[in-house]
Amino acid sequence: MKLWQKHFETDKMIEKFTIGTDRETDIFLAPYDILASLAHAHMITSIGLLSQEELKAIRKELLLMYQQIKNGTFSIEPPLEDIHSKIEFVLTQKLGETGKKIHSGRSRNDQVLTALKLYIRAEIRQITHLVHQLFEVLLERAQSFQDVLMPGYTHLQVAMPSSFGLWFSAYAESLTDDLLVMQAAYRVANQNPLGSAAGYGTSFPLNRQMTTELLGFETMNYNVINAQFTRGKTEKILGFALNSIASTLSRLAMDICLYSGANYNFWKLPDELTTGSSIMPHKKNPDVFELIRGKCNQITAFSNEVSLIMNNLPSGYHREMQIIKQPLINAITQLKDCLEMTLYAIPRLEINRRAIESDCYRYMFSVELVHEFVKKGLSFRDAYQKVSQLIENQEYEEIKTIHHTHEGSIGNLCLEKIREKIDRIITDFQFHIAISAEEKLTLEN
Amino acid sequence: MKLWQKHFETDKMIEKFTIGTDRETDIFLAPYDILASLAHAHMITSIGLLSQEELKAIRKELLLMYQQIKNGTFSIEPPLEDIHSKIEFVLTQKLGETGKKIHSGRSRNDQVLTALKLYIRAEIRQITHLVHQLFEVLLERAQSFQDVLMPGYTHLQVAMPSSFGLWFSAYAESLTDDLLVMQAAYRVANQNPLGSAAGYGTSFPLNRQMTTELLGFETMNYNVINAQFTRGKTEKILGFALNSIASTLSRLAMDICLYSGANYNFWKLPDELTTGSSIMPHKKNPDVFELIRGKCNQITAFSNEVSLIMNNLPSGYHREMQIIKQPLINAITQLKDCLEMTLYAIPRLEINRRAIESDCYRYMFSVELVHEFVKKGLSFRDAYQKVSQLIENQEYEEIKTIHHTHEGSIGNLCLEKIREKIDRIITDFQFHIAISAEEKLTLEN
Amino acid sequence: MKLWQKHFETDKMIEKFTIGTDRETDIFLAPYDILASLAHAHMITSIGLLSQEELKAIRKELLLMYQQIKNGTFSIEPPLEDIHSKIEFVLTQKLGETGKKIHSGRSRNDQVLTALKLYIRAEIRQITHLVHQLFEVLLERAQSFQDVLMPGYTHLQVAMPSSFGLWFSAYAESLTDDLLVMQAAYRVANQNPLGSAAGYGTSFPLNRQMTTELLGFETMNYNVINAQFTRGKTEKILGFALNSIASTLSRLAMDICLYSGANYNFWKLPDELTTGSSIMPHKKNPDVFELIRGKCNQITAFSNEVSLIMNNLPSGYHREMQIIKQPLINAITQLKDCLEMTLYAIPRLEINRRAIESDCYRYMFSVELVHEFVKKGLSFRDAYQKVSQLIENQEYEEIKTIHHTHEGSIGNLCLEKIREKIDRIITDFQFHIAISAEEKLTLEN
Amino acid sequence: MKLWQKHFETDKMIEKFTIGTDRETDIFLAPYDILASLAHAHMITSIGLLSQEELKAIRKELLLMYQQIKNGTFSIEPPLEDIHSKIEFVLTQKLGETGKKIHSGRSRNDQVLTALKLYIRAEIRQITHLVHQLFEVLLERAQSFQDVLMPGYTHLQVAMPSSFGLWFSAYAESLTDDLLVMQAAYRVANQNPLGSAAGYGTSFPLNRQMTTELLGFETMNYNVINAQFTRGKTEKILGFALNSIASTLSRLAMDICLYSGANYNFWKLPDELTTGSSIMPHKKNPDVFELIRGKCNQITAFSNEVSLIMNNLPSGYHREMQIIKQPLINAITQLKDCLEMTLYAIPRLEINRRAIESDCYRYMFSVELVHEFVKKGLSFRDAYQKVSQLIENQEYEEIKTIHHTHEGSIGNLCLEKIREKIDRIITDFQFHIAISAEEKLTLEN
Repeated sequence: MKLWQKHFETDKMIEKFTIGTDRETDIFLAPYDILASLAHAHMITSIGLLSQEELKAIRKELLLMYQQIKNGTFSIEPPLEDIHSKIEFVLTQKLGETGKKIHSGRSRNDQVLTALKLYIRAEIRQITHLVHQLFEVLLERAQSFQDVLMPGYTHLQVAMPSSFGLWFSAYAESLTDDLLVMQAAYRVANQNPLGSAAGYGTSFPLNRQMTTELLGFETMNYNVINAQFTRGKTEKILGFALNSIASTLSRLAMDICLYSGANYNFWKLPDELTTGSSIMPHKKNPDVFELIRGKCNQITAFSNEVSLIMNNLPSGYHREMQIIKQPLINAITQLKDCLEMTLYAIPRLEINRRAIESDCYRYMFSVELVHEFVKKGLSFRDAYQKVSQLIENQEYEEIKTIHHTHEGSIGNLCLEKIREKIDRIITDFQFHIAISAEEKLTLEN
Repeated sequence: MKLWQKHFETDKMIEKFTIGTDRETDIFLAPYDILASLAHAHMITSIGLLSQEELKAIRKELLLMYQQIKNGTFSIEPPLEDIHSKIEFVLTQKLGETGKKIHSGRSRNDQVLTALKLYIRAEIRQITHLVHQLFEVLLERAQSFQDVLMPGYTHLQVAMPSSFGLWFSAYAESLTDDLLVMQAAYRVANQNPLGSAAGYGTSFPLNRQMTTELLGFETMNYNVINAQFTRGKTEKILGFALNSIASTLSRLAMDICLYSGANYNFWKLPDELTTGSSIMPHKKNPDVFELIRGKCNQITAFSNEVSLIMNNLPSGYHREMQIIKQPLINAITQLKDCLEMTLYAIPRLEINRRAIESDCYRYMFSVELVHEFVKKGLSFRDAYQKVSQLIENQEYEEIKTIHHTHEGSIGNLCLEKIREKIDRIITDFQFHIAISAEEKLTLEN
Repeated sequence: MKLWQKHFETDKMIEKFTIGTDRETDIFLAPYDILASLAHAHMITSIGLLSQEELKAIRKELLLMYQQIKNGTFSIEPPLEDIHSKIEFVLTQKLGETGKKIHSGRSRNDQVLTALKLYIRAEIRQITHLVHQLFEVLLERAQSFQDVLMPGYTHLQVAMPSSFGLWFSAYAESLTDDLLVMQAAYRVANQNPLGSAAGYGTSFPLNRQMTTELLGFETMNYNVINAQFTRGKTEKILGFALNSIASTLSRLAMDICLYSGANYNFWKLPDELTTGSSIMPHKKNPDVFELIRGKCNQITAFSNEVSLIMNNLPSGYHREMQIIKQPLINAITQLKDCLEMTLYAIPRLEINRRAIESDCYRYMFSVELVHEFVKKGLSFRDAYQKVSQLIENQEYEEIKTIHHTHEGSIGNLCLEKIREKIDRIITDFQFHIAISAEEKLTLEN
Repeated sequence: MKLWQKHFETDKMIEKFTIGTDRETDIFLAPYDILASLAHAHMITSIGLLSQEELKAIRKELLLMYQQIKNGTFSIEPPLEDIHSKIEFVLTQKLGETGKKIHSGRSRNDQVLTALKLYIRAEIRQITHLVHQLFEVLLERAQSFQDVLMPGYTHLQVAMPSSFGLWFSAYAESLTDDLLVMQAAYRVANQNPLGSAAGYGTSFPLNRQMTTELLGFETMNYNVINAQFTRGKTEKILGFALNSIASTLSRLAMDICLYSGANYNFWKLPDELTTGSSIMPHKKNPDVFELIRGKCNQITAFSNEVSLIMNNLPSGYHREMQIIKQPLINAITQLKDCLEMTLYAIPRLEINRRAIESDCYRYMFSVELVHEFVKKGLSFRDAYQKVSQLIENQEYEEIKTIHHTHEGSIGNLCLEKIREKIDRIITDFQFHIAISAEEKLTLEN
């Protein structure tokens, strides 16, 4: 049964082609479509399109479905094609004419868009929470290993002394930048499109400010054409933020894979995070981190995919915007999986405290010697030449100590300063506004 | 004879390969490398690596170069390979040993990175300013044409009545979302990496807080490894913001091209914005907007290009990060050109106030009739069926009036509300902090 | 409590993370893993690692599974993690020690790779067949409408007279170029990697020429490291070919959507290929073609996704190469769906034979007039100026006839020449070699 | 002076915006526009639009410019905007009315397209030649080091014994697959679009078969709309081939960078291919190979850039197709530079014949032991268990010999078989046809 059902019978093949994976993806959107429907019902009651009794009846049924969704007992069965027709079907079946009225003053377009934005808002909250947890785990590890030296590389070549503390906290601070991008995505998503109808508004005297407040949105997409512009765009901007976090995770995973190799031996992975080889008895492969690396790289493809779909489309809704839902949900789910796996794995990395002792690292402290000469009055260039000469003449004597004191260096990790950064960003999200609005809307009374 | 054995010696070939376009790109970075060098000079004076006299001498030479850059009389000639060697060369030539000392406590890596971030910061300011101007132009046009109806399309099919006021202000509001992404890019860029050396810090007792303040950065990249992480990452995140703005412009351009066609005739482009055909005497082609569309789409490729270069590189500096400079500068320059051209063109669009009168738009007001029936008590579904029936039976009588009153609809564009959005975002950038720091640093005294 | 400490134990979580969708994707690979196993079994029999009796027993079980796969009664149940462990499990369960021996002389890596290449080879055959069918449908339509004029556009502006015959056959010929790319993909895929083990070969005296012939490969990936290089690379190159075809389909779909609009009215889509609007009773939306356009654009993202995963990985197998399977299978399946839908839809397009009569096309024949003047002796430039003048002075008199005779023009479509192109390409694939090898290998005797 | 110049003066800014880099890029296209003009001139003479005397005069001037281009004395000065207006300007200046006639029967669109295809055809020839040379260098090195073992890695972990011979020839064979994609690109490009005019043909009785033969094209783009489809498409398909080769080079470069590190020490780079560090006296950075890696990764972005520009554009020429020229020429030039640099560097890699002796590689031969047990009658699984046990109990005794004999393994590199592959592909290109046609066309007589 389809809303637009006219006089013909749709061929099965076409139905399969057009519905695609909507029944599966829409389960993710289901609770948010209920929330938006609740707000819409309240608002159209306020402008006289629903009576208080009708509102009450509709609320009851919507909240019932909301419970089923939370309990996992909700599903979208054929011939219903998506979450929106399912809700309408249930309401009409239960409430007759009253059930049909929920559609007054909204279109399928703004309905889907609102559910999508509420879904994205909630997922950003979850992802940000996971990132925050990972940040704390990394900082804790940085603290624990702040005194343990580790070789530092540039150009894939041995460069200068680093430390495990420095390495762990580098990734922690990197995540704070990623959250700045996520915050932009949140603010873009956290605007109410409900009431924009199919992109050209409606002659009903809607009160869009009311639904904006009921749903806890920061503001609304005022212009109704612009509300439709946010379709595809919101997903792409979220894709940017997912890309940012994913890139950080992927690089972390690359480091872990590379430096777990026998040639470096910086750390060992516990058995449950490695896999054996089918033909090499001695092998332990870092499959979990290879998969984190690859899955995160895959996430960096998502926003480009959106551009390839959206570029050159003129204004106005286009049907294929719907197919962005599937890769969006995949990217979100995959990133959460990778964050959880990293959270699990990081505390289990077995650090080799003697990694730096290998003979490979003979000249790694040479720059320290340069600095010693500079402190004694040579210009940097001359000190550099002198040490180069010593190395070439094999007169270089190894130093193995290091005295870095400036902000962010091995001897002064500034972990608290870095924590202040993330704390401020998390506060700025103001997640509580959305949470309490959603709670209030679904409060049974 | 091998193909690569040409007229020049091997080292020339290798030099050409490694230097690439650095001499050209670095002109863009030049003023920012001076700024960073000034701050660094002050700071190392404060920790005793330079005397006040040396500082004074170095400042003088740096400010002289700064003036030359502003005047366009500065260049980087072979054999100097980039802006950094040029500055060092001039200082050493003029000041001898003193000139060499500027390199104490910093590495080429953090030097380039700092210049790059200052450059990006300044460009973001310029782009944001252009976007703001375009916003105002669009809003002014929306105001002027708020009462002129225009057909609205969905699925590329005639859908519902829209208006020129709605169309212009939609793009204005869309730009506010783009600026949210730009703000994230600004905050990511606006952090001081100076003092991170090659990514592992230094044994000099640098005062990084001091350079942070001197350069007007919001905060610093504390962790020195993380400071290096921002290479490639800052560019990519800026790429996200450029992508966002470019996508909005590209879609605007697509609308303008499409709807200037004879089949729509919504507007005419002035002659200077069109080009004739070499074989068709009647043709006026919207070349300028086609190029805006294409160049903006090209900009959406930039962040993916960065990912293709950076993905799977482990931590630590890698040489190819340098080659990101060229496409970065191109994308920035190209976007500014497109913004300027759009700014020029939008006020010159000649609107056809009678576009809506074509016979194509016969049924476009049918949803208004549905709403009339709903207001008279029918459920939306029944009203919809009734109007469908009228259309099918050819009993549908055309309405041509429209009464939309809700926020963001044709009758209530909320232009002031939309302006409030952008005003708040512009304020939040706090551009004045960077501006005044840079002015103070280059003040001759 | 951490988010990732849910209802299941850690190893379940890790298992879920590492297995991913392998159980579903591997159903696609299943028949090909059987084929490769059959060839491997024959070959290791020939070098004495299996007896004839063991071979016979193994063949019997493999062919039984092959039948189950064809019948749709085959599945991969937990705890088995993929098709390869499933096959090994069944063989061992049925045949004990004998079953285990199938693994001699091969690794999981070359086993997967071989199945993947056989799968790709078969899919290329199917896709090429669908493209060929679509080619024929387009050519048939071109023939039927070769005399019906249609406006031709450049720069989205009315340009010159075209014809439906020209339009249909343009897409047909375009597909021939796409098949050239597909042929390259076929030749890259059609090389035997079996025997390369984990990328470094094996000390067993394998006869790789024998498996190459048994499986009907054109040649083998000789170098065992290179055989591993083809992982990811084969998928990407296939992605190029999918991209090519998808781009052609997507553009076709864009044309159909755009020109079905009321402003053009070149054709109507039958009801079953359109969808109604939930709020606009008069709307018929070309959803099917919008989805073809979007899904095909999505396919153009696949090869970039592979690059984002693979770039910068050094030589040797990496675990995440496995995750390319899922988007590969999606892209293939999606393209086949789009091809089938286009095949269904093209013959159902209802052409408007009077499309060209609209007043919009007044000047469209002006270039014909220019040519008339040229034929009378004016230079092109002067004739062009003269016609421009006539148009400007409103003295231009409309021509509505057209006499194009050269190859590929409206009056001379060269359909047979275009058909010769595709026939030659199809022949060059030499699909029969692979087909007959596979048939022979699975022949029960 | 512009062909389409009408009655107004184009604003400088607009001119700069629309012309872009055409004057620079078109120098690359210049010789090919001459070739196409020569062929066109001959053909229109054959249909009576030029007299033999006019043809002779035009030929003379075109050949003169051709010589200037070859000598590097040709340039495109403002106000001429591109190569096409330059040629027309010169001919008109020298020959008056006769010079103008060259434009009869062609449009700017098919003129550009033909030049572009001839340019691409020539560049493919050069790139293929460079790839062939690199292939030979790699094979020569493989031969020289066929007996020197090298550790083999999978999952970035020590895996099994490999050899330098195997490693070098792996990249050689990999290039043969890349050339298959290049061959598809060649066949797509090697089709004549001349005569398609602006995409809708012309009423002149052109003889397109004649220009096809004169220019040595394999066939023609018959359908004139399809000829325009090849704009953007030809570049993208070439982009696929560039991507393929670039990916192979990039991976080679990654191997070289990684394994030149102190932890591996497989080879040393000569001094001229490394760069020192500005702060670390002991460092030698593999800048050249890092840049090859990065530049090649950048090339993998090109085809996606084309898709982002072209996706969703309906049929017919669009102005932005012109801006693809610049990144196309960059990608081609950059790949040639990278190929030449690799050609230079590979023979200079100083191989460490004792790389395998490090203690890291203790268990690397364990799979050989497994195979020994299998050959003695154990099943693979049991042998594997047994060796695992030995390793765990520290009873494993190191083997250091290896006896691989099958095709493509360490002991049997099949270099001649691999050479046969490339020889066949090079032959199939049939480059001589284009070369001799071009020579014939430019032969002064």
